[in-house]
Amino acid sequence: MKKNVLIIGAGGVAQVVAHKCAQHNDVLGNIHIASRTVEKCQQIVDSVREKGSLKTAGELQAHALDALDIEATKALIDKTQSQMVINVGSAFINMSVLQACIEAGVAYLDTAIHEDPTKICENPPWYANYEWKRKQLCADKGITAILGVGFDPGVVNTYAAAAVKEYFDSVDSIDIIDINAGSHGRYFATNFDPEINFREFTGRVWSWQNREWVQNKMFEVKRTDDLPVVGSQTSYMTGHDEVHSLSQNLDVPNVRFWMGFGEHYINVFTILNNLGLLSEQPVTTAEGQQVVPLKVVKAVLPDPSSLAPDYTGKTCIGDVVKGKKDGKDKEVFIYNVADHEEAYAEVGSQGISYTAGVPPVAAAMLIATGEWDVSRMVNVEELPHRPFINLLNEMGLPTRIKDEQGDRPLSF
Amino acid sequence: MKKNVLIIGAGGVAQVVAHKCAQHNDVLGNIHIASRTVEKCQQIVDSVREKGSLKTAGELQAHALDALDIEATKALIDKTQSQMVINVGSAFINMSVLQACIEAGVAYLDTAIHEDPTKICENPPWYANYEWKRKQLCADKGITAILGVGFDPGVVNTYAAAAVKEYFDSVDSIDIIDINAGSHGRYFATNFDPEINFREFTGRVWSWQNREWVQNKMFEVKRTDDLPVVGSQTSYMTGHDEVHSLSQNLDVPNVRFWMGFGEHYINVFTILNNLGLLSEQPVTTAEGQQVVPLKVVKAVLPDPSSLAPDYTGKTCIGDVVKGKKDGKDKEVFIYNVADHEEAYAEVGSQGISYTAGVPPVAAAMLIATGEWDVSRMVNVEELPHRPFINLLNEMGLPTRIKDEQGDRPLSF
Repeated sequence: MKKNVLIIGAGGVAQVVAHKCAQHNDVLGNIHIASRTVEKCQQIVDSVREKGSLKTAGELQAHALDALDIEATKALIDKTQSQMVINVGSAFINMSVLQACIEAGVAYLDTAIHEDPTKICENPPWYANYEWKRKQLCADKGITAILGVGFDPGVVNTYAAAAVKEYFDSVDSIDIIDINAGSHGRYFATNFDPEINFREFTGRVWSWQNREWVQNKMFEVKRTDDLPVVGSQTSYMTGHDEVHSLSQNLDVPNVRFWMGFGEHYINVFTILNNLGLLSEQPVTTAEGQQVVPLKVVKAVLPDPSSLAPDYTGKTCIGDVVKGKKDGKDKEVFIYNVADHEEAYAEVGSQGISYTAGVPPVAAAMLIATGEWDVSRMVNVEELPHRPFINLLNEMGLPTRIKDEQGDRPLSF
Repeated sequence: MKKNVLIIGAGGVAQVVAHKCAQHNDVLGNIHIASRTVEKCQQIVDSVREKGSLKTAGELQAHALDALDIEATKALIDKTQSQMVINVGSAFINMSVLQACIEAGVAYLDTAIHEDPTKICENPPWYANYEWKRKQLCADKGITAILGVGFDPGVVNTYAAAAVKEYFDSVDSIDIIDINAGSHGRYFATNFDPEINFREFTGRVWSWQNREWVQNKMFEVKRTDDLPVVGSQTSYMTGHDEVHSLSQNLDVPNVRFWMGFGEHYINVFTILNNLGLLSEQPVTTAEGQQVVPLKVVKAVLPDPSSLAPDYTGKTCIGDVVKGKKDGKDKEVFIYNVADHEEAYAEVGSQGISYTAGVPPVAAAMLIATGEWDVSRMVNVEELPHRPFINLLNEMGLPTRIKDEQGDRPLSF
């Protein structure tokens, strides 16, 4: 039984994590939020109090923290007596926060893979470049570290595991499809940190096909699906974290990730990328100033968390899984539909943040109760899928399944 | 009789000015080139020597100069015994260089209006905000200052004056059309300094219509013309220097400027502009760095002078003038067609730089010979058009006229 959660980060996802932790503080204990800018943490604390999200009386405090400073992070873990750290800060801090958790002997959870600010699209599998190098250390020290437990990666990994274990004798392909059919009403915006968002698309697209790594260019390969609720949607093969763990952890020859983009997004992205404005490498202005273009693009774009009040429409994210069952071809689509307006009404964030922020809280609850407190480093597909899907059903992210028997809620 | 020329600036236009001065150094005397980066000046000197452009033996030297430093500019004028300064540097230095010329008692020529780095699209007429405030001083001191004597502004002002004086009893409208039908083969590039180029289009478009200033948005008003050599071309009403002097100096109720843009240019411009990446106002990155987005866009785009070797195709720039002659409606098109490849072969620059760089040298020659040495500040339409057009015909920018009598060379 573990308790008390330290949330690191203060963006839109952290806002959701804080609200959801508060809604379940009878299980999770005290809640602390830390980021470089303590004011942003305090705003989240205020928002949680305003909405009355705390289920029972308990601590809820904001802290200033440079999460790259391992000793400072350890000190805050110690001071707050946190036994679980949910890291939803920048993708650049994972390895520092993980190290702090290992040294402090507490559980670690994150929602996206570690990135080096100066590199994009490294060699696959990505996890092997950073997090998995600490696998042995976590096992030796009995540290529970759950990697990538947002929606995608995260819930879609559980969907993949559920499909493999519950519905097939053998699986040939897992295609994860991520569609945001919502509208934020702005000229252009990204749904999460523009810097991380664009970095996903400026390099090579890695996919796992016929048990080998295949490279493509962004927007080179697309598909169109008729999906529940959101209808006909075109998505493009995209490099994404979960391909790099599912390919290694499940015995499936094809694992691909597809993200939906509108023509306007592709037009803007293509121009910025072709001009060199999405580069993570510094350029020098005529005046001699060294600037990373991508950081300037981020500075002029809307703050993703500012989109929430006006966001309408729905997301549909799920796994198309194909294989054999009893000698016959079979296909299932396991998915969730989330609503931007409902997310904002409940926790003050838009649907993309909501789908990313609820799962790590569910995972923390499963650590708190012991079901997922596995004392080693894992990706989500390595953990029991049934309690996670059941808990998400209760926490605002209901799972559905569509197959030859129809389209229906999924629970175990 | 004035002689010896100091060229300020070291971009693509300065390269043309240097070559053309060298080709006429029997009239112009010694040639000196100065800019912040002396290496760029030296490259131009080397290019002139390599092409053997010097007509007779004479000085040709490179100098380092911060042209915002009025005393330093005066000292260099004095040291080089220059009696004429051709300013083809950044649009931000005009007022400093002009002041240095006034104090040094030498002639001043430029090819584009002064700009304040922090302002765009100021109130009309633009010249009244800066240069014209020195009109009285120039008159008092007997300084010849010729403003905007590139192609547009410059030659097109002479075309307007020629039309008014030679072909009409009354003129109703002057529409200046600037078409670059050339191709540089790059994904995207501007033909001159991106910072100055984009600044022309990010604010209001001023035009002179029915003897009043009218405001439009960029790309709001367009026209399509069937033009000599370049064929059918769409152009867009654009704010431009010459509208601000022709409207005040000629008794013509309608003066408009039109620039040709392809769909790709408009798409890129529109996206960059809507995102805020063309802003001249600084933004702050997440890391706290203050950056002017437009300067970063400039840094990632190709250096315009680097386009020259691969540039093909032609430009067509001229004045559509409509009015009355002998009680009847009349229309003339006075224009020049320039060829990018021919320009590069002759002076190592592309056609846009060529059309901008030849006219100030012709003007300097007319000052040297006394015909344009008017001892006051003028815009080009206030000067005799015949010697200028005749000289340009000889110097590589032949003028043609198209009217009811056909399409033919124009000379006097």
